[in-house]
Order: sequence, then C-alpha cells, then structure tokens
Amino acid sequence: MKKFILFFLFCHVTALAQNHNHSFGRKIAFPNVSGYLTLKSDLHIHTVFSDGSVWPDIRVQEAIRDGLDVISLTEHLEYQPHKDDIPHPNRNRSYELALRLAENSDLMIVRGSEITRSMPPGHSNAIFIEDANKMIKDDAMDAFEEAQNQQAFVFWNHPTWTGQETDGIAKLYDLHEELIEKGLLHGIEVVNMDTYSEEALQIALDHNLTIMGTSDVHGLIDWDYETQHGGHRPITLIFAEERTEAAMQAALEAGRTVVWYNDLLIGRAVHMNLLLNASVTVESLNYPGDTQVAHVQVKNNSDAKLMLHNLSDFTFYDTADIIELAPQASTTLKVKTGKRLKTFDMKFKVLNAIVAPKEQATLTIQVK
Amino acid sequence: MKKFILFFLFCHVTALAQNHNHSFGRKIAFPNVSGYLTLKSDLHIHTVFSDGSVWPDIRVQEAIRDGLDVISLTEHLEYQPHKDDIPHPNRNRSYELALRLAENSDLMIVRGSEITRSMPPGHSNAIFIEDANKMIKDDAMDAFEEAQNQQAFVFWNHPTWTGQETDGIAKLYDLHEELIEKGLLHGIEVVNMDTYSEEALQIALDHNLTIMGTSDVHGLIDWDYETQHGGHRPITLIFAEERTEAAMQAALEAGRTVVWYNDLLIGRAVHMNLLLNASVTVESLNYPGDTQVAHVQVKNNSDAKLMLHNLSDFTFYDTADIIELAPQASTTLKVKTGKRLKTFDMKFKVLNAIVAPKEQATLTIQVK
Amino acid sequence: MKKFILFFLFCHVTALAQNHNHSFGRKIAFPNVSGYLTLKSDLHIHTVFSDGSVWPDIRVQEAIRDGLDVISLTEHLEYQPHKDDIPHPNRNRSYELALRLAENSDLMIVRGSEITRSMPPGHSNAIFIEDANKMIKDDAMDAFEEAQNQQAFVFWNHPTWTGQETDGIAKLYDLHEELIEKGLLHGIEVVNMDTYSEEALQIALDHNLTIMGTSDVHGLIDWDYETQHGGHRPITLIFAEERTEAAMQAALEAGRTVVWYNDLLIGRAVHMNLLLNASVTVESLNYPGDTQVAHVQVKNNSDAKLMLHNLSDFTFYDTADIIELAPQASTTLKVKTGKRLKTFDMKFKVLNAIVAPKEQATLTIQVK
Amino acid sequence: MKKFILFFLFCHVTALAQNHNHSFGRKIAFPNVSGYLTLKSDLHIHTVFSDGSVWPDIRVQEAIRDGLDVISLTEHLEYQPHKDDIPHPNRNRSYELALRLAENSDLMIVRGSEITRSMPPGHSNAIFIEDANKMIKDDAMDAFEEAQNQQAFVFWNHPTWTGQETDGIAKLYDLHEELIEKGLLHGIEVVNMDTYSEEALQIALDHNLTIMGTSDVHGLIDWDYETQHGGHRPITLIFAEERTEAAMQAALEAGRTVVWYNDLLIGRAVHMNLLLNASVTVESLNYPGDTQVAHVQVKNNSDAKLMLHNLSDFTFYDTADIIELAPQASTTLKVKTGKRLKTFDMKFKVLNAIVAPKEQATLTIQVK
Repeated sequence: MKKFILFFLFCHVTALAQNHNHSFGRKIAFPNVSGYLTLKSDLHIHTVFSDGSVWPDIRVQEAIRDGLDVISLTEHLEYQPHKDDIPHPNRNRSYELALRLAENSDLMIVRGSEITRSMPPGHSNAIFIEDANKMIKDDAMDAFEEAQNQQAFVFWNHPTWTGQETDGIAKLYDLHEELIEKGLLHGIEVVNMDTYSEEALQIALDHNLTIMGTSDVHGLIDWDYETQHGGHRPITLIFAEERTEAAMQAALEAGRTVVWYNDLLIGRAVHMNLLLNASVTVESLNYPGDTQVAHVQVKNNSDAKLMLHNLSDFTFYDTADIIELAPQASTTLKVKTGKRLKTFDMKFKVLNAIVAPKEQATLTIQVK
Repeated sequence: MKKFILFFLFCHVTALAQNHNHSFGRKIAFPNVSGYLTLKSDLHIHTVFSDGSVWPDIRVQEAIRDGLDVISLTEHLEYQPHKDDIPHPNRNRSYELALRLAENSDLMIVRGSEITRSMPPGHSNAIFIEDANKMIKDDAMDAFEEAQNQQAFVFWNHPTWTGQETDGIAKLYDLHEELIEKGLLHGIEVVNMDTYSEEALQIALDHNLTIMGTSDVHGLIDWDYETQHGGHRPITLIFAEERTEAAMQAALEAGRTVVWYNDLLIGRAVHMNLLLNASVTVESLNYPGDTQVAHVQVKNNSDAKLMLHNLSDFTFYDTADIIELAPQASTTLKVKTGKRLKTFDMKFKVLNAIVAPKEQATLTIQVK
Repeated sequence: MKKFILFFLFCHVTALAQNHNHSFGRKIAFPNVSGYLTLKSDLHIHTVFSDGSVWPDIRVQEAIRDGLDVISLTEHLEYQPHKDDIPHPNRNRSYELALRLAENSDLMIVRGSEITRSMPPGHSNAIFIEDANKMIKDDAMDAFEEAQNQQAFVFWNHPTWTGQETDGIAKLYDLHEELIEKGLLHGIEVVNMDTYSEEALQIALDHNLTIMGTSDVHGLIDWDYETQHGGHRPITLIFAEERTEAAMQAALEAGRTVVWYNDLLIGRAVHMNLLLNASVTVESLNYPGDTQVAHVQVKNNSDAKLMLHNLSDFTFYDTADIIELAPQASTTLKVKTGKRLKTFDMKFKVLNAIVAPKEQATLTIQVK
Repeated sequence: MKKFILFFLFCHVTALAQNHNHSFGRKIAFPNVSGYLTLKSDLHIHTVFSDGSVWPDIRVQEAIRDGLDVISLTEHLEYQPHKDDIPHPNRNRSYELALRLAENSDLMIVRGSEITRSMPPGHSNAIFIEDANKMIKDDAMDAFEEAQNQQAFVFWNHPTWTGQETDGIAKLYDLHEELIEKGLLHGIEVVNMDTYSEEALQIALDHNLTIMGTSDVHGLIDWDYETQHGGHRPITLIFAEERTEAAMQAALEAGRTVVWYNDLLIGRAVHMNLLLNASVTVESLNYPGDTQVAHVQVKNNSDAKLMLHNLSDFTFYDTADIIELAPQASTTLKVKTGKRLKTFDMKFKVLNAIVAPKEQATLTIQVK
C-alpha cells in the first residue's frame, strides 16, 4: 500500500511543475527601492481549515504562480463552518501543512490567525504568532493581549465591510482607540478583497497604523481576480532590509508598505516616493534632426500602470498633460523644451498613487 | 453570532454569481442527436474528502462554468490521505455537500465511489450507488458485489496508468475477465486525465464495455486543462432518452457514449455517427456567377473541431482533401462538381473521430 | 476583351465584401448629442494623386472599415512627387474616383485640396470647394481668396509640425492674423497624425477657429494606427443638424466639433458637454441588502474611454477618486451615500476631456 | 522648395522604421535544408502600375514585414485600367521604383511581367526578364518567345481561375503543350491567391513544370490574408544554392520548390522531404521513473503546422494516431515502446504535406 501512495505523490508533483511553466507570465514584479528589498505579500488568506474552499496546497501554488514572497494562512479562530468535517482542534494546522508544501520553493509562510469578532473590534489578523491555539479566548481583549505576548503584528481587517458597517464607512470605536493606545493594534486594511476605504486610510494616517491590503481569499484567486485577463490580487509591498521573517516584521512595524490594488498604489508619501523613484528611470535624452523637441525615453520598471499628470511648464509634442507609463515598458516623452537642453527636470502628479485622502504623490525626474 | 454567519453566506453567493457571468464563453456545447439528448458528464472527480485539493463547492462551480449536465464525486474508499484532518467515517459526505450546493442550478450530482486497489483489478468507479459506506470491504470482489447489490454502473479507471502498468499498456487480467463474466464491470476509461489508451479502446470493443472518458481531477480544472487558452477537461457525452438519473444509467449500460478529449472524439461507430450527423448540417448550396463550382455552406454545431478527409471524387477550388470545420462555425466548401448539380453527396473520413484502433468514422452529407 | 475586364471587377467586389464582414468590430461609434447628429470625419487624407501610397479605393475601404461618415482626399496642390508617373493636370481626380467608388456605401466624400506653402502660412486644407484646379495660384493669398470664392471651409494644418517649426510650438504669424481677419481661415488642426498641440488649442480659442483633428494619412491607416491592437486614427466629431454636406459645413463654420485622438477628447466646453452628456447615462440605482452603499450603474455609450475624477463629497466602496468608464460598457459605481437616497448628483472632472490648455471638462450626472 | 521635399521624406522614413518594430512577430521563418538555402518568395504581385491599389513602396514594406527574401512586381502588360491616370509607356517602372525603395533592406526585387491573354494560354508570368517593354506583342506566342530571348523563367498563372475556366478545373490546351515542348513554359501556379488546384498539381508532375504558389495581390496583404489573426500570404519556398538572383533562377528551373498555402505544404516528394527533414528535429529521449513510456521531444523548426499520422506499430500514452506539431515549438511524444529502447524509428504520414494528388509525404525520424 505504501508504493501505492508514492505513485499518487509522483503524479501530483509532475502536475505542479507543468503548471508552473505555463504561468510564468503572471508573476508580479516590482523593483527593490533605495535601501530596502521590495517583498510582495498577501497576509490574509483562508483554506478549508476555516471557511475557505481549498486545501493549503492550492494556496501555495497560487502564491508561487503570482510570484509572491510571503503569505499567511489566517484561519478564523472563532468561525469554523467546516468543523463537522474537520474537527481538528489545532488552529496551527493549515500553517504547518503549507510550510511543508512550500519547502522546496522560495515562498515564505508566516504563521497567522484571524481574531473574528463582531464590531467592535470586528476582525483582526495577528501574524508572526507562535501558537494560534493559545489565542482562543472568550474575551476579545484577552486574544489581543495573547497576540502581544506572542509578539505578533496585528492589523484590523476590512473596517469598511458592509457585513459589519452597513454604510461601508470605516469608523474608529472606543475599543479600537484603547487597542491602539495599548499598542495592541498596529495596522489597518485600507484594501480588502474588492474594497478600498478612504476613511481607513485617514485612520491609518491619524493613528500611525501600517497601511495594509490583502486578498482575504476564500475561493480561487484566478476566479476572484480574473488573472487570465491580466487581473491581480491586492498585495502589500513590504520594504524590508532582508528577506527574513524578522526583517519583514520590522518593516511592518515601521509602517514601510505600499498597497497595490487594481490600478491603484496606496501608501505613505515617503514610501510611495521610494517606490516611484525606483519604478521610473530615464533611459535616454536626444533631440532628433534639427528640432528643439526632446525625446526622453523613460522606463516603468514596475507591474503597476503609472498615470502621470504633467506639472511642468513644458508641453508635449504628441499628447496633452496626462501620460500613461505602461507596466514593464519604455515610453518616449516628446517634450517641447523650446531650446536644446543638456538636462532638465520634469515634475508629475501620479494620479493613481494615493498618499492621503484626495492627495496623490508627486514625482520629479531628472532628465539628462 | 447567527447574523454573523449570514453575512458570510451573502458574501459567498454574490461572488458565485459574478464569476458565473464572466465565464459564459467556456460552456461546452454539443447538439442533441437523433432520438436522444446529449448529456455532458464528468464521472470521476476528487475533493478534499479523499485526495483532492478542493472543497465540493469548487467542483460544483467548475462544472457549472463548463456547462456540464452531471458530475460524480468519486472519493477513494480505501485511500484517505487527509484522514488526520478529515476523519469522517461517512464516505457519502462529499456527495451530500455537493447535492445541496448544486440545488439551485441545473447541475445533476450522481453518488459514486472509487474502489481503489492494486492491479488487478486496479481502480474502478461505481456510480449510481446508494451508500458508499457499505462498499468498504476487505476483499475487492466483495466491493464489486456490493456495488451490484446497489445496482451500480461500474467502470475500470485508467487501465493505462503507469502508476500500475509501467509500460502504459492496458491489459486484461483474469480477475477482469471474471468481473466482466459476472456482470460486475460495465465500462472502461479509454481516456483519463491526460491519457488515451488505444488498447483500452480495443478491450471495450472486444468485451462490450462502455467507452468512458473522465478528468479524474484532483487539483483545479482551470490549471490542469488551461481553460483560459480554450482547453477543456475530458468528458463523456451520454446519449440518454431523458435528463434523469435513470435514463442516464440506462444509456451508460447500453454503451451509448462518445468521449471528447482534446481534439479527439472516441466512441463506437453507431454512436459516433449519431453525433456527427447531428453536428454537421448543410446550410446552403449555390453556384456563384456562371461557374460550375458549388459553394456549399456547412455548419459544425458542436464544440469539437472536425477534421474531414475527402473521400469523394470531387476536388475543391480552394484547398486539398483535408478540411477543418471549426467549432460552432460555418464553413464554405467550394466543390468543383464539373456541372451544376441540384443535389449531390459528399463523403468524408473524420480524422479525429476514432471508432476503433486505427479506424476513423466516415460521414456522408447530402448537399441540396 | 471586355468580358475579361468584367471578371477582374467581379473579383475585386467580392474581396471588398468579404473584408467588410471581418472588420465589423472596428467601426467607430459615438452617440448623437442633444439637437445634433454626431458625424465622424477625417478631412485630411492623401493618395497616389499627391504624395500618398495608395489608390483612392483603399481610402474608401479604410473609411468604411472605420465606420466614418465623411472623408476628404486633400491632395497637395503644389507638391506632386508622383508627377513623372501621374502627370494628370486635374487636381479633382482623386475626389472623382473616390466619389464613384463610395457610391454604393453610406460614406460621404467631400471635395478638398491642400494649399501647400512654406511657413507662413504653412499648409492649409480647403474643403467643400468646387474646383481644385482653379486654386493653383502663384501667390498663397490668391489661393485662399479663390477658396473663399468657392465658399470653402479652410483650416490650418499641423501648425506644430517640426518640418516647419523646429521647436514644435504653434505660432501665429502676421499672415495668419490677416487671413483670420479677412475671414479666409476658419479652423486649425490641434491634432494631426500623431501630434497634439496645446498651443494650437489656445490659438483656436483666442481666434474663434474651429478645433480640428485629422489623420493626414499617406501610408496605411492600419499600419500607422495599429488598428489590430485597438488603435484608431484621429477623427473630428462634427455635430450637424442633418447628414448632408451643407449641414456639415454649417457645423464646421459654427465650430461644433470635438476631436478624438488616442485616449483624448479635445473640444470647446460647450460641445464637450454635449458629447459627455450623451455618452454617459445612468442605468440604475439600488442599495443591496441592508446597506447604505448605492450601486449606480452607468453606461459609457461612446468608443472613448472616460477617466473620471470624483469631485463630490461621497467616497467609493471599491476604489479611490479616479474611475475609468470603459468604452461601450456599463460600470457599477459603489457610492457611500451615508443614508439611502432616492436621488443625488455626482460631479466629476473628466481627465481626458480637454476644453482648454490645463483645463478639463466637468460632468454632472443625476442619479435616480 | 527642396528643403520642403526633404521634410516629407524624413517623415516617411521615420514611419517606416516604427512600423517595422511593431511587426517583428509576423516574419515568416522556415529552416534551410540539406544543401540549400530556403528562400521565401512571392513572385506575382500588382501595384497601381497595372490594376493594383498601392504604390510600390507598400509592396516593399509588406514583404519586409512578412520576412520575404524576394518579390516580383508583375504588372499586366496588356491590362492597364489606370492608364488614363498613369499613361506611362515604361512597363519596367514599378520594378525600378521598388528596387530603389528596397535598397536599404535585405529584400530582393526581381524584374517580371504578366503576359495577360484570354485562355488559352491565359495569364503567365515571365520573371528574371531584362525589359518588359519589349514583351508587348500582338501575338501571344511572340511574347513568350521574347521572354525566352530574355532568358526568363515563365510560369502559367491561376489555370484554375473561374474567370477563364468556369468549372475551376485546370486543363492543358494544345497551345500549352506547344509552349512546353518549345521550352517556353517552365512552371505552373498550383496555388494563386485563395485557390488551390489538384489538377494543376497533376499537370506539373506530368509535364515537369515547377510547382508555384503566389499571392497575386491587388489590394492589401493584411486585408486579404488577415495577418492580424495569424494568416499569411501564399509563398513559394525556393531551395537555392546561394542568395542570388542567378541561384534562385537555377533553383526554379530545376523545380526545387515547396508552396506554403494556409496550412498546406505542396511540392514534389524529394523537395518536401528536404523541407520536412529540416523542419522536424529530435531534441531528447528519456523514460521517466520506472516506466517503459518513451518521452520524445521533437521540435518543429518551421512556421507551418505539421499534422502527423502515425504509421509505426507503437501507440501513444496521451493521444491517438494523429499528432499536431505546432509551428516553431517543441512537442513531447509519449511513445509506448514496450521496453526501454536506446534508439528507434518513428514513421509518419504528414497529412498536410501534399506531394501528388491524393498523396501525402512520409517522414521518418530516428529517435535516440
């Protein structure tokens, strides 16, 4: 009978490898930034071990296909709709399975759990924990304190969710203020699944919480985000000093994140600038023929489309003041500089780079 | 807490409906044939309840996306790699879950189980059973007899599988002959997952077994069959008098099937002819201008590409003797008939319609 | 020999019809606006009869494929590089050929000519003329006066062209001021081929010139604008009372135009508003479940992508303040209205709708 | 005024270069064969200088986009529908223009002309001529003899054309037999535009004529052959000792050609074998795990899809006897060899490689 099982495993592994080859094209890519590695994370995910629809192996494969650096399987502690079939008392189980399934890949798995309560405080993820089982507590506050005992990084999930706030508007309750004051809450989801919350972004800025975006996937990434048509799950870019769990946690605690959601980038101005400066590079400047029209070739090194709004006095030879830099591509800007310049600056507002409610990042590039 | 669960359900249902809209394009379609409905089936499927990687809801959604009429979740009786986590003794469980999940759709779920033994007899699926639990027996023969007690339709799975036959060549053992003689084995997989077996087809023809093709899916249909690039899972077309379980079982017992696998159709000549005659219809005949070149518009009403090899004396004005009829499309044949004819016959070998080893179906169409 | 020629014609016509069927998808579509028909025009085109590379039949077919209402073949009067091969003294010839080639289609052909001079005045198109031959004059001013005699509509071509202005910046010369004062110049190309000129737009607004955009095609539309990848030639939308030459000329003289160039719309605010109001319609308003999040379905009835920037106080449940309305598609806006409203207004800046240098159109939609 | 013309030229050249970059993907590629270079030709093309719709520059650009080695602009000598506009008496003119336009590219231009007569003899192309003007003769036979004087290679065009044979069936007239006997006719179009003639192929084989296929394009290659959807014009592959006009003519006179038309390859068996042997190479052989199923990776080095029908005794693990080798791609054949072999032969009929009416090429590959 042992031989029998082996054949099944062999069969499985082959399938994995084949699929891998066919999905190279969808790996998400962002450049490292000045001083930090850019790690791609999805830190809010479910499997059959709470209310998701897949075994952990699918989550590992999805993340590898997406080119992520790190995921966390954050099963609900208190919500176990499959418990008639999966009565397992071990809340660490999906983490343990995923860890083994990912061990021959570069994917990192972080232990996490979702503290699942009615509002307030609503749902929160604790990651970098040591033992999920110990977090099962009657009182919500006790669960947060246990997370602190385990030196977890804790963030508030989908504060905008109409399942708990029917107007869809994120609001800070007294309980949240208490959690923040006590140092028990460190981040907040500004993006969850297919929602974005301007109010959550304001809360993050007002209370120094880390800006987070996650898929919160229960079904299949491919179906929820139409990856076959170029869609992608929401991810949090983490700017870490090393590719280690400790460095990642340090980065999250320092708030060094930018969220990528549909065509939007969301993050604090300082981190957004890091990312934009690394993403846009000038490749060449020349003036064709006897003209005074500068041809400036710029490269977008990121997977995010960048929508630039010209803030300089120069106008363009071939377009108005809005310019789109397609992902991972070069674009030639034809700038009417009036005379031939050896070097000049161009300043843009990046329309899809949100740094605060109603406020977008600016980007200055030095052309030479 | 009840209210809480409700929100989750609401959320889930919405996601389902949205996905549905986006995947209309991939629904598999074949025409009904003379005297019978054409039912699209996949009768060999796994979930987390044996060694698959998804909850039954994903299987139901995959089948709805593919436009199938019927599926069976045929969990291994004897192979339970997830039993540490899913210790459920009820082998009917995935069927019961799927039945409820599909109840608001047109999808039919048939109760089935996989008798999972080393070779011989290898693996076999028993479907239309009453209780999978009763089929757990020490002796393989006892399991087959219990299937008979339950009036099941039983077919031999992947006789070509290198996991059990290292040369990949399907062979009939004494035990199989005994099963067939006793009326305990009624069909054989000529196609399983990504394998096709000419030897299995010969066994089917020699021993009057029903020709079957299944996905035997463990992971995701989309990944295994690249549906985003137009791929499809192997299915068995069943020619049934009604859209009921009983009619379907009667059709399978009578051997009325054609398998669709990649670009191949595989079935007995009599059933293949039923399908081809329904799939190809003549839409018009005319002679343009003063020519004697007949323009014959033919429609392929099926999702299968049809590769025709001309057996008539006529030659074509625009191509040699091989003609491809694209799926669900009209093609104009330009036939050099020498003089203007009111009606004439055209005879083709259908290169991708296998009716026996080294033998392809013929198709005669009456043009008028 | 006559019979012989007939066969060639037959052959040609068939090819035309077939191509037509295959290119339905690329026909440009914009809605009619309040009080006017929206006519799609390209009024600056060349053939082998001046310095273009195709016979007029290709221009007619290109325009039919693009779904245009009207074109003008504006051969250079003074620049005839093919004159060794096509010594024809008749400057109306390409018009006459095109007129006959288009007579079985809905496409209108307008007689036009390009007055081709060094700067100033540079190049200008005179359309709705009676006889191009009479416009051949030694002195440029005489040519403009002859155009006036023929009651032509005259517009200045590519004032931004580095072939005549090496800095690419459109400038009004004394001669242009004189032409405008005398009523001899009525429009100006803000878009020509692959150029856009903010300075030309300012000149149009300052001097009450009609805003024009044209392809100025010499080679093939498909190659210059990559129509197979969804590209399109620059066109001028003309808001006319009827689908007649006279109504079209009246509309041009009244300045009722919007130019569509890549993703940009360019026009006076009053005409832009006409177009935007016709292009965006509210299809439905509902509040799902017990939420206060309005689901507003809006339809973009035009072929132009519309990039909206939210100017209302409301925020969105699923995105930040920039929303893209894909062409010819419905989009659901999820608006957090705080309470359930029977009706409300939403106000947007339309980022890609230019009404003046550095100024974009606003659009208010009444939701109910 | 000179400066003026220069700008136009500059503008044109830039456009050419840009288009070039965007169309790399459609360059046709076939491997060289044993002993010969494989040159891609289209030797039957029209421009405005007879009854085509484009200037020669478009023909040069089309050929460069298609990656051809050689074209001939074969204007009708006797059919000049544009003569009212292009009264030029010089029948060499389009050749001369094309030669200059192609001089900075690798494209070769061959001087040719179409002798355009009613049937018999119908139309014929004479290529490698010295002066088309001298071929204008009252009597057809005199034109063929003048071609011989100029040492031309002459082939019969579209013998299947319903414009001259209403039944579409190529027939040899006495006049053709006389031409062949006198050595005045050397080739025959088996493929012209969108027609294929099995009868013409038989005539080629019976009378030792070179097998030719051409586009005979009058309009645009992109429109007639839907290149944006992967279509291609018919071409003649010429197996020449060098990339020179002389070597090409020698190859044509020796009959060393294969025609590529839609999915068909058509040629004499000896040349077809040269092409197929160069096109299909074995990359690797291995037996995975403990199986006796050979995994044979074969590469199709050509742009033609190859449809193989297995003639060996071996069966396949994953498909029936028909295998498609996609163009420019590797395919893994899973061959059930029964035991592990160090080397073995596989024999196929190539279904889309026509070597005679009702006869397809065979291909044997040595696996090791």
